[in-house]
Amino acid sequence: MLRGIAQVDFQPNHWTGLIFLAALFVGGWRFGVFGLVGTVTATATAYLLGAARDRVAAGLEGFCGTLVGVALVLYLGVHWMTVALVIGSAVAVSVLTAAMVTVLAPYRLPASTAPFCVVTLVMVLGAPSFDRVWAHHPNSAPPSASDPGTAMTWHDFWHGLFSGIGQVFFQDEWYVGLIFLAGLAVASRLVAATALAGSLVGLLTGWWLGAQAADIGAGLYGYNAVLTGIALTGTYIALSPVGALYAVIGAATSAALTAGLTNLFTVVGGHTLTWPFVLVMWVFTAAVPHLSRLARAG
Amino acid sequence: MLRGIAQVDFQPNHWTGLIFLAALFVGGWRFGVFGLVGTVTATATAYLLGAARDRVAAGLEGFCGTLVGVALVLYLGVHWMTVALVIGSAVAVSVLTAAMVTVLAPYRLPASTAPFCVVTLVMVLGAPSFDRVWAHHPNSAPPSASDPGTAMTWHDFWHGLFSGIGQVFFQDEWYVGLIFLAGLAVASRLVAATALAGSLVGLLTGWWLGAQAADIGAGLYGYNAVLTGIALTGTYIALSPVGALYAVIGAATSAALTAGLTNLFTVVGGHTLTWPFVLVMWVFTAAVPHLSRLARAG
Amino acid sequence: MLRGIAQVDFQPNHWTGLIFLAALFVGGWRFGVFGLVGTVTATATAYLLGAARDRVAAGLEGFCGTLVGVALVLYLGVHWMTVALVIGSAVAVSVLTAAMVTVLAPYRLPASTAPFCVVTLVMVLGAPSFDRVWAHHPNSAPPSASDPGTAMTWHDFWHGLFSGIGQVFFQDEWYVGLIFLAGLAVASRLVAATALAGSLVGLLTGWWLGAQAADIGAGLYGYNAVLTGIALTGTYIALSPVGALYAVIGAATSAALTAGLTNLFTVVGGHTLTWPFVLVMWVFTAAVPHLSRLARAG
Repeated sequence: MLRGIAQVDFQPNHWTGLIFLAALFVGGWRFGVFGLVGTVTATATAYLLGAARDRVAAGLEGFCGTLVGVALVLYLGVHWMTVALVIGSAVAVSVLTAAMVTVLAPYRLPASTAPFCVVTLVMVLGAPSFDRVWAHHPNSAPPSASDPGTAMTWHDFWHGLFSGIGQVFFQDEWYVGLIFLAGLAVASRLVAATALAGSLVGLLTGWWLGAQAADIGAGLYGYNAVLTGIALTGTYIALSPVGALYAVIGAATSAALTAGLTNLFTVVGGHTLTWPFVLVMWVFTAAVPHLSRLARAG
Repeated sequence: MLRGIAQVDFQPNHWTGLIFLAALFVGGWRFGVFGLVGTVTATATAYLLGAARDRVAAGLEGFCGTLVGVALVLYLGVHWMTVALVIGSAVAVSVLTAAMVTVLAPYRLPASTAPFCVVTLVMVLGAPSFDRVWAHHPNSAPPSASDPGTAMTWHDFWHGLFSGIGQVFFQDEWYVGLIFLAGLAVASRLVAATALAGSLVGLLTGWWLGAQAADIGAGLYGYNAVLTGIALTGTYIALSPVGALYAVIGAATSAALTAGLTNLFTVVGGHTLTWPFVLVMWVFTAAVPHLSRLARAG
Repeated sequence: MLRGIAQVDFQPNHWTGLIFLAALFVGGWRFGVFGLVGTVTATATAYLLGAARDRVAAGLEGFCGTLVGVALVLYLGVHWMTVALVIGSAVAVSVLTAAMVTVLAPYRLPASTAPFCVVTLVMVLGAPSFDRVWAHHPNSAPPSASDPGTAMTWHDFWHGLFSGIGQVFFQDEWYVGLIFLAGLAVASRLVAATALAGSLVGLLTGWWLGAQAADIGAGLYGYNAVLTGIALTGTYIALSPVGALYAVIGAATSAALTAGLTNLFTVVGGHTLTWPFVLVMWVFTAAVPHLSRLARAG
């Protein structure tokens, strides 16, 4: 189960999972508790429906549940109704993961966080129709709403660098991001360095294009670049000099894509979930067989 | 051709088709006539372009045409222009069905009502751009617009239970739903019982989440659950105790998804066509090969 | 590289490419220059990442770059920032083309202009989030905004007929369309005749449905029909009497689809890029294996 939490960042390591869980509790007890509820439900559903044992053991059936739990408690608040919705959504995430594995198999593409993105988007889009869910308005304004402007300060810069790592789990405090970074370093120093580099690339891309400084400081332009960076350096694509350049381009692309999708995602506070990562990772991974300078990992 | 109408609910039975057609005429002569125009056009197009004879004979090339005819006359009204649009849309539905059969073949997934959903959505989205089509405003307000509130009455409950079966064909009168139920019972008592159970699951899911009572009473939370229920119990997935539970989860998921999509579909009066069914059915059917407790039917 | 420009209209002919380039410069020096920047960047990226040599030589890796260059300078204006964005977008288009070739291979469908459509849409959607990009407001009002009305004049008719061919490259002057037509005639008289017929079918479909006359006159209902017409007559589908009828239906469908998508694309001035063509071409080509009266070309 701890591996499930670590798999959000592609690490099948239970120590990393434990540190990630601690980071969630530092961010707020509700993130830790709801994340656990989601992880347990998704893993149990996969187990009961007969999913492959090695996938369950590696935590590959749990990580989307973690993210669903964290996201729904952030957007819908701490209520018993949210607990019920997290359980229902984690069941849906489990089924959707199995379906995506089938559909993506011919292309050797991973489902990654896509099931989480789909289910969370549907729940948050649907919530206003449901009186029992939407009684309390969700936390949905982006940081730039109360603090507009594009002049990036040093404070925005170093906060954004670490928050970019925490925003993978919707955490916008720099020290929570730092704990996640420590968790990654336990699994692999290369992965931790890549995460930091990804956050930097995403942040600089957003700044260069003139994105809102408060959003950059909250890590909103970094977290997709972090995931894309890790995915394209050794996880799905073999390490090489051309591969590293390719990963930098991928990380920058996911940051640029973040802005394009943000306007479609105002309902979830301009948080694009991990859609930009998912889309960029699929495209950059699917392109590899046709590009002879690159090779798939594993 | 009667089989085409019956295939909306997956039944290749001409008696069922005849009762369904009668139900459409009871709902209003225009639904019967435009449904027939759509069915005939789609079947004829498939025949002329050389689609497989056994698919044409089983009615599999006609049912999307039926639904297009009924939907367009509901949203655009009784005009000669609507007749022309139904014919054009039924041709498009025929070509789209063939394309979807090709694309979905590797995954052994059925196109089902997806071509109807795509074509109708495009036509209704595009209609306001076209002066000759949009001269008369369409019937597009959901029942809850004039009668808001989430307190469900007994009247809402039993009306919604039967309307859920009729709403598959856009019919919101309870007695029309009852005729459709009779048509299903002619084909198979199990299917009729499943349809009723699906409508109940959808209705209760909507009520539990706090959806608008008037929409529940009109069957808007039931019809996707009806189709999902029938599709997952014996049609595409083999019957078993775990399979029955899986179908209940699927039916509830499609009702929850209805709300998520409704906000995207306000232009068509909050009627989500059968998108929730199509998406849930695809996901739940594609997941089966990876879940060892379940098996595909046929 | 000239072949890359000609490949927008499926012609691997460098004379055609030269005439197309001349037409872009007649439309405005910025279209020619930015189109060249896009073509060179996309081709060079494909070459450096190791794409197949025969695809690079045939211009198949360049044409989406051309379109990205022309589209971005139209929507974002002549700035150094736009040059940087065209280069970044052309790199993305190159990677996306390789990814789409992989995904579409099992169905033998071409990626065509889809990578251009995706990247341009994302850039234009994202632009308002980026202060450095959006400083100068883009040219995004459709012609009908300043000149509403559905009564088509003779002037609208013959302008629209030629503009429909030029709008493939976002050019709305009739004489620019005429130069493109000349370029096509150099490659093949049949293709030129098909392009003109496609523009006519699209224009008439828009007029019959009651679209805005100014939009018809600017060729906005013609250009997708032009591309669909060329694609379905000899390019992807073998020539035959039934095939010709099928192409007419396809061209009319793409014009009707244009209106449906226009309402989704108001942010890009009601210009639907070549999405209607891409979607109709995929559907009509994927349908062929199931329709015995038709056959794939090549």
